Amino acid sequence: MKNSLSLEDIYNLAYTTLTKGGSCSEQAEAVAQTILSAEKDGSVSHGLFRLPGYFNSLKSGKVNLNPNPSLHKVTKAVLKCGGDRSFAPLIHKMYLNELIKSTKDIGIGVLSIQRVAHFASLWPETETLAENGLIGIACTSYLPVVSPFGASEKLFGTNPISFAWPRKTNNPLVFDMATSSLALGDVQIAARDGHELPVGAGIDANGNATTDPNQVLEGMLLPFGGYKGSHLSMMIELLAGPLVGETTSDTTEENNIDDGGPPLGGQFILAMSPEIISGLDDWDKNAETFINKLSNLKGVRMPGKRRHINRTSLENIEVNSDLLNKIYSL
Amino acid sequence: MKNSLSLEDIYNLAYTTLTKGGSCSEQAEAVAQTILSAEKDGSVSHGLFRLPGYFNSLKSGKVNLNPNPSLHKVTKAVLKCGGDRSFAPLIHKMYLNELIKSTKDIGIGVLSIQRVAHFASLWPETETLAENGLIGIACTSYLPVVSPFGASEKLFGTNPISFAWPRKTNNPLVFDMATSSLALGDVQIAARDGHELPVGAGIDANGNATTDPNQVLEGMLLPFGGYKGSHLSMMIELLAGPLVGETTSDTTEENNIDDGGPPLGGQFILAMSPEIISGLDDWDKNAETFINKLSNLKGVRMPGKRRHINRTSLENIEVNSDLLNKIYSL
Repeated sequence: MKNSLSLEDIYNLAYTTLTKGGSCSEQAEAVAQTILSAEKDGSVSHGLFRLPGYFNSLKSGKVNLNPNPSLHKVTKAVLKCGGDRSFAPLIHKMYLNELIKSTKDIGIGVLSIQRVAHFASLWPETETLAENGLIGIACTSYLPVVSPFGASEKLFGTNPISFAWPRKTNNPLVFDMATSSLALGDVQIAARDGHELPVGAGIDANGNATTDPNQVLEGMLLPFGGYKGSHLSMMIELLAGPLVGETTSDTTEENNIDDGGPPLGGQFILAMSPEIISGLDDWDKNAETFINKLSNLKGVRMPGKRRHINRTSLENIEVNSDLLNKIYSL
Repeated sequence: MKNSLSLEDIYNLAYTTLTKGGSCSEQAEAVAQTILSAEKDGSVSHGLFRLPGYFNSLKSGKVNLNPNPSLHKVTKAVLKCGGDRSFAPLIHKMYLNELIKSTKDIGIGVLSIQRVAHFASLWPETETLAENGLIGIACTSYLPVVSPFGASEKLFGTNPISFAWPRKTNNPLVFDMATSSLALGDVQIAARDGHELPVGAGIDANGNATTDPNQVLEGMLLPFGGYKGSHLSMMIELLAGPLVGETTSDTTEENNIDDGGPPLGGQFILAMSPEIISGLDDWDKNAETFINKLSNLKGVRMPGKRRHINRTSLENIEVNSDLLNKIYSL
């Protein structure tokens, strides 16, 4: 069963639920906006689906109701943010502009974020950078739900990475993908809706291959693309963990309050100015030729394209009614 | 048939062949050292196997016999190098130290390289950064030999990416991998030695799946890991191309002299200081816990480990005798 909600309804439902959970307005606004953006883009697993988790992390005391984040400009190219146990969208709302400013000045910059609960897609932050003429790369880790290639023990998070390339007269070219075979939200939704997973997505608790989402949730996901995807997942653990002064997914779990919401950890955001680094005013010329050639190849689906089309719609959005009932009951 | 060569023999053979091709000493030394390092590490496809290609690119006039590269410090964090049609190892020998210096000062830095012929592994440059306490990430594109996911037309290079993480009391943790299913050198060696390729590695010229390396060489490779590997390959085209003021693989080919050697293009090298970005003296503590846990998991093979073991050997190295005869005949 589905219910039809307007964009305003979705924002208000998210905002109200978060403030009912005790969040201050500013944080609730940032998260509600992120949930609305995900729903508009058709990214169901990062929209209202996440709201009960956000709510629970407020109620458990893990996430700060009224956080007071701080920004330290370590050097002209390194910004270090103490998240004060906030939801990540608040940090992006407060500090992405500082990263944009410093990167337009010096050509490259990193925003290193500690003590933050990231429960959303990564494209909102990378796309914001690209809308300002910068390349954005972001990654974060999570809780151990993925086995490294070759093993059958959980160690990695789903460890998404997002990349956004700026275009002067077009939407940025953006991808945002888990380095696991599937995002965890998609496995949870497959379990809820009774769908099978693709072959190779995960293994059960005993290390046997399975396409049953419930077995995978009790067992573990696998990295995408064998040992290469596994190496990338390892890289992301290090970038979004120790590099930003934070824990990796396994240690994150040891310190986590298991409230169904996101854990506290780190995020790594890199920004680069193609204008400064290439030294060219028409830095986009070769890129546009390439992107157009790629998007015109028969059979190619450009990342982010469906999202950008979805978001132009002002129509109501169909939301799973069990989910809605769950949210109303919070 | 194989022949046994000492490490000194390998270096001398490479150096002599390159100077016979007309290269100045300094460039020949840098490339010979890179070839020796590959052979020592057991990375056959990047060792002497590449020497005829290097030689041909000198003889054809594509690569400068006596290049005069330049470095421009655009900002405190952006170094821009004009390669003057040199082989990449010369650039790394000349300028990696500058990147190390600026990154230790400001926490992050990029070395953007134009007009260079890259025909080697990427780990020598990222590992050098990590041996100096920095994270290294490098990538480069090539010639179009890979079809984007979903298509059956060559557009991407094999587009390798390397990542190195510094460790205070251990060899750096390094991976270096093509974003294609296989590196091109490995396909060429499989063709030479009459081995089949793994299923899914490539397609023939008509877009049909094949495990015959000769068919793949006439056709094209596929990205590793489906659409996700394809997105990463696309990202690398943009980072090692337009971001550094260079061409993507497809345009590189249009301007290339087809001499069997490497094309002229760009390279992107990123360095980051975990000490500065994390703000911690013991930035390595969480990382070491994680790396040790990973490497102790049953079934996990740590990237770079075999290379680091191989390189401690001072024994002679077995080299394919057809290859040696080919090199002697140059």
